[in-house]
Amino acid sequence: MTRSAAPPLAVSLGDPAGIGPEVIAKCWDYRARFELPPFVAIGDPRSVSRVWDGPLELVEDPQEADAAFDIGLPLIQLSAAEEDVPGHPSMSGAHCSLDCLEIAVGLARSGSASGVVTGPVSKEQLYAIGFSHPGQTEFVAERCGVAPGNVAMMMAGPTLRTVPVTTHLPFAEVPAALTTALIEARGRSALRGLQRNFGIADPRLAIASLNPHAGEGGTLGREEIEIIEPAIANLAAEGWRVTGPHPADTLFHASARANYDAALCMYHDQALIPLKALHFEEGVNVTLGLPIVRTAPDHGTAFDIAGQDRADPRAMASAIRLAAACGVHRSLAA
Amino acid sequence: MTRSAAPPLAVSLGDPAGIGPEVIAKCWDYRARFELPPFVAIGDPRSVSRVWDGPLELVEDPQEADAAFDIGLPLIQLSAAEEDVPGHPSMSGAHCSLDCLEIAVGLARSGSASGVVTGPVSKEQLYAIGFSHPGQTEFVAERCGVAPGNVAMMMAGPTLRTVPVTTHLPFAEVPAALTTALIEARGRSALRGLQRNFGIADPRLAIASLNPHAGEGGTLGREEIEIIEPAIANLAAEGWRVTGPHPADTLFHASARANYDAALCMYHDQALIPLKALHFEEGVNVTLGLPIVRTAPDHGTAFDIAGQDRADPRAMASAIRLAAACGVHRSLAA
Repeated sequence: MTRSAAPPLAVSLGDPAGIGPEVIAKCWDYRARFELPPFVAIGDPRSVSRVWDGPLELVEDPQEADAAFDIGLPLIQLSAAEEDVPGHPSMSGAHCSLDCLEIAVGLARSGSASGVVTGPVSKEQLYAIGFSHPGQTEFVAERCGVAPGNVAMMMAGPTLRTVPVTTHLPFAEVPAALTTALIEARGRSALRGLQRNFGIADPRLAIASLNPHAGEGGTLGREEIEIIEPAIANLAAEGWRVTGPHPADTLFHASARANYDAALCMYHDQALIPLKALHFEEGVNVTLGLPIVRTAPDHGTAFDIAGQDRADPRAMASAIRLAAACGVHRSLAA
Repeated sequence: MTRSAAPPLAVSLGDPAGIGPEVIAKCWDYRARFELPPFVAIGDPRSVSRVWDGPLELVEDPQEADAAFDIGLPLIQLSAAEEDVPGHPSMSGAHCSLDCLEIAVGLARSGSASGVVTGPVSKEQLYAIGFSHPGQTEFVAERCGVAPGNVAMMMAGPTLRTVPVTTHLPFAEVPAALTTALIEARGRSALRGLQRNFGIADPRLAIASLNPHAGEGGTLGREEIEIIEPAIANLAAEGWRVTGPHPADTLFHASARANYDAALCMYHDQALIPLKALHFEEGVNVTLGLPIVRTAPDHGTAFDIAGQDRADPRAMASAIRLAAACGVHRSLAA
């Protein structure tokens, strides 16, 4: 069987007590149906074997993964200090999840892996062991030598991509956090990301309003006039195809979505409500602005259902498939 | 041909220069396909005949509408002082749109019509003629002797109903406007509206969070803990089936929607983004808390496409159909 010359994707299992090991193993089970390229998992084999009875193929180098992928789930072994019980996260498991991530990023940085797909981690547990980044994204950015402000999170589904300008902020703090410079920076990251990761030469970015009805000429808020419109003008002056500020409520139906390649949203729920309403099982988090490909499924550790064979692998499969596609676009452009 | 004994619905044409006359006339054209009950339009016949070449049946009393409906679009004539041009709103047209609304509400109040469906008006034009209500809803409430605070706007689509707690406010003013008492009042209106207008005896209301991830235990905002949770507790203590506060981004996919009859949302776009993403052509605005049935299509005057035979009548048809269904539920309960 011939396979592409591209190295495999590195998939970190995430927290060993969460659903990461289960959904990643199920992706191997359904690799044909999901049309997945070869990948190598990184983590504690015990976290896989206690929730899955398929074949594991321990490998030491991603190069071996291609051949091993036909026989079992290729896995680079990395053991937690203690064995976790599904649904019961521990500090040792948190350390293990961080080590997996570190190795996966290193493999992608060195070119031994064609990209990184990250399994879900517990932020609470990571904070407990002294992890000082807001999340995996910022950690990956740092390991790649990129300032966190220069990366952007894109949520991608089959018919919608959104990029939030602000993310994990209380609602009341959003207006003060929005600046013309930040909107411009995120817009640029989104546009370059569409070029680089999605192969769209002249991408179209729709920029959402903050206020209802786009502020109705200032009577329902002035952020559109004072902050968002100048950012749009600046991006347009650079030659980018940007439109807006659009009223957010009419930006996400099918005929509106046909007019753009991604929507730049002002806050977390504005980006995630439409994405998850339309594509709950298929949403993929793509980190834009990195020298490597990095995707993640749009779900958490789901400790409440871990180890019960109930976790749905579709989001992880979408993350793996999209990482592979992004890798192809990047290699074509390189 | 036998018809139900219920009086017809009264449908105000809205602004004569908008798309109201066109979509209402098209509803008559497609009355069989859309499965519409008899209705009587109220407005200036010239605003219909210049955008539609079907038959108009001028009537003086809704009682005549039932028989007339087989022959043409029944219309209670009410002429604007001057004839409007589609797409070019005027003060005279605004007066006419207000008169239509007044008459439609009067017919429903008297029992001559089984409910009111309102065509789109131009708020800007209404304000220019001294209209002092925020919108048609508050005007209808006043004419029904109901305080505006006791009505609630529900947006209803085939698989989702949402009720916003706050509506046309700048984003930055939402947190200060949210109080436990207001959330409770809107929740009660939503629950009673589900009983009265939708015939759901023991309705389930899902209450959304304001902050991302439902505030993550207070680290991403405290409104959930301080304002929303007490409202939920109070509603539950009254015996209502309420849940939440739910993270808003995971509240609107299909399996989440199966768990409630309506979602109570904290702000305009939180309610309208998912509704329009899922049901753009079919969203109906239902006013809860009135002694009469009142619905409206979820679109505006669309002056930019008025008179071009391009307006889509599906939202208006959904509004008429839903008004009829609400009327049936109310008459069964009475």
